[in-house]
Amino acid sequence: MANIQQVAQKAGVSVATVSRVLNNHATVTPKTRLKVEQAINELNYEPSMLGRNLRNSESRLLLVLIPSISNPFYTEIIDGIEDTAIKNNYNILLCDTDSNPQRENIYFNLVKNKLADGIISMDPAVDMQKLIDLAEHHPIIQCSEYDENSCIPYVTIDNELAAYHAVKHLIKLGHEKIALINSDEKFLYARQRRQGYERALSEFNLPINKEWIYNTTQLEFEFGQQAMKKLLQSDEKPSAVFAVSDTLAIGALKEINSHGLLVPDDISVVGFDKISFSSMTNPTLTTVSQPMYRMGCTAASMLIDSIQGNKVESIVLNHELVIRESTMG
Amino acid sequence: MANIQQVAQKAGVSVATVSRVLNNHATVTPKTRLKVEQAINELNYEPSMLGRNLRNSESRLLLVLIPSISNPFYTEIIDGIEDTAIKNNYNILLCDTDSNPQRENIYFNLVKNKLADGIISMDPAVDMQKLIDLAEHHPIIQCSEYDENSCIPYVTIDNELAAYHAVKHLIKLGHEKIALINSDEKFLYARQRRQGYERALSEFNLPINKEWIYNTTQLEFEFGQQAMKKLLQSDEKPSAVFAVSDTLAIGALKEINSHGLLVPDDISVVGFDKISFSSMTNPTLTTVSQPMYRMGCTAASMLIDSIQGNKVESIVLNHELVIRESTMG
Repeated sequence: MANIQQVAQKAGVSVATVSRVLNNHATVTPKTRLKVEQAINELNYEPSMLGRNLRNSESRLLLVLIPSISNPFYTEIIDGIEDTAIKNNYNILLCDTDSNPQRENIYFNLVKNKLADGIISMDPAVDMQKLIDLAEHHPIIQCSEYDENSCIPYVTIDNELAAYHAVKHLIKLGHEKIALINSDEKFLYARQRRQGYERALSEFNLPINKEWIYNTTQLEFEFGQQAMKKLLQSDEKPSAVFAVSDTLAIGALKEINSHGLLVPDDISVVGFDKISFSSMTNPTLTTVSQPMYRMGCTAASMLIDSIQGNKVESIVLNHELVIRESTMG
Repeated sequence: MANIQQVAQKAGVSVATVSRVLNNHATVTPKTRLKVEQAINELNYEPSMLGRNLRNSESRLLLVLIPSISNPFYTEIIDGIEDTAIKNNYNILLCDTDSNPQRENIYFNLVKNKLADGIISMDPAVDMQKLIDLAEHHPIIQCSEYDENSCIPYVTIDNELAAYHAVKHLIKLGHEKIALINSDEKFLYARQRRQGYERALSEFNLPINKEWIYNTTQLEFEFGQQAMKKLLQSDEKPSAVFAVSDTLAIGALKEINSHGLLVPDDISVVGFDKISFSSMTNPTLTTVSQPMYRMGCTAASMLIDSIQGNKVESIVLNHELVIRESTMG
């Protein structure tokens, strides 16, 4: 295989110029670029990525940290990240951290060793201190989940307001006994969504009943089933449920059905995320739609901006309440 | 930060010995290993992955090629790959190829440049010639989808037999008009599942009606809905449907419901894959279960074996028909 010296010789330019062409530097004239590209094609030259790393510390690889690929919430965000990355000549590598600090370390080391240019973290359980340390010298963006007190730029929605809208929708339909299936409140989004839930109830002078608030440890369907089972055992059954994820809401739906109860006639259900399954359930699920694809695009743009040395500000995107059969039968 | 020389000095061994410990070579005595590990801990030494790459061409990273992370079929396989990789001190990076050859190239180059040690490909649309070329010099395993004519080792199930079992189950329930929602028959698994479908029908002297065979271009829910819509328009409506993926089957379920028909009373439905959502539908879905987690573990073990220079044979795992409400209401 040809090497970079041969390409430079054939194009009649220096090795540094070939390197600049390979890395899309703005300082190369179109004419020179053309000459180099022709030489590359004629010699069938494939730049060694390892070589490129060592020369200019640009890998053009972005790492995306997700806690679990089995949560469909992440897939649309990743589509957005990927499309934006590719448009800008970057590629992404998905890192399933399983919220395990040891696995995180390995991925952090890829960035420290310049095998990747930056990180988009979507892991709510990420070791924040390590992420903050890394962010001192490397481009990092948080997506969806973030830390209010760190200086790492993030893109998110207003979780408190979104939960408030969801619960207000149920109140407007006449519900007074509204349960909350929340995830672990160690996560910021869980605390914010609970605040929104409580604000809506308070605004309409409805009591906050602790028996109707259930915290799950995980987001899988089964945990929504378990939660709903408990709620159906409470002294006074709720007439509506707001779950902080569609997976939990779909589990709740299933549990309600299996007790011979009807949604929304007996109990109304609202989810969160608008995952693709949420329109496949019977009945279809009312849910809060996050602009997931756009959130991914935004996160990728922010990261690339940051890699290019620009200052990046955090961004809060709008949500939307999608009303379907599970509340409006 | 400490460097490898300081670790060697502190442990009273050579740099080469420290390197052997870091790379888990079998030739190090337990006593030496302990000394080196103590020195590493005391000096808080973090091995540079880039340095390790250059010294011994072992990255301990495995690439996993998937066509799309939005298909839940892949998530359990990936769990298996990941658990096995981690148990063996490897880490995985997920590469969403979107079945796009340009993206594939980038990932192939990571292996060529020794930034990753090998590839597990689950992309049915992978450029086989390129994969075969790469496999000449690098460890590659195919998982789930494979090429009969290449010499790349694979792990899979018997797709023909699994489809045969699914259709035979419907025939045994008395169905004579059984439709097939298949994906694009450019994929081997699609051709094999169609063969199984046709074999079951032939064995019971049931005619193969072209009007009841529908090929989709993609596997998302919506394509199952479209397919079912068409099937419901046929002159003679089928009384049962076998779909080659759960996502297609769930789309079909939804379409049947929206026409006011009942599953399984009016039409029975069988899917394929046993994705987690298949037990959350109403009714729950009868489906063919692939041992996805085990398939992932097997693929990872095969790849690691191959990286270690061992000869690896292809493996065919057993499937299982999981009978639920959509055929047995």
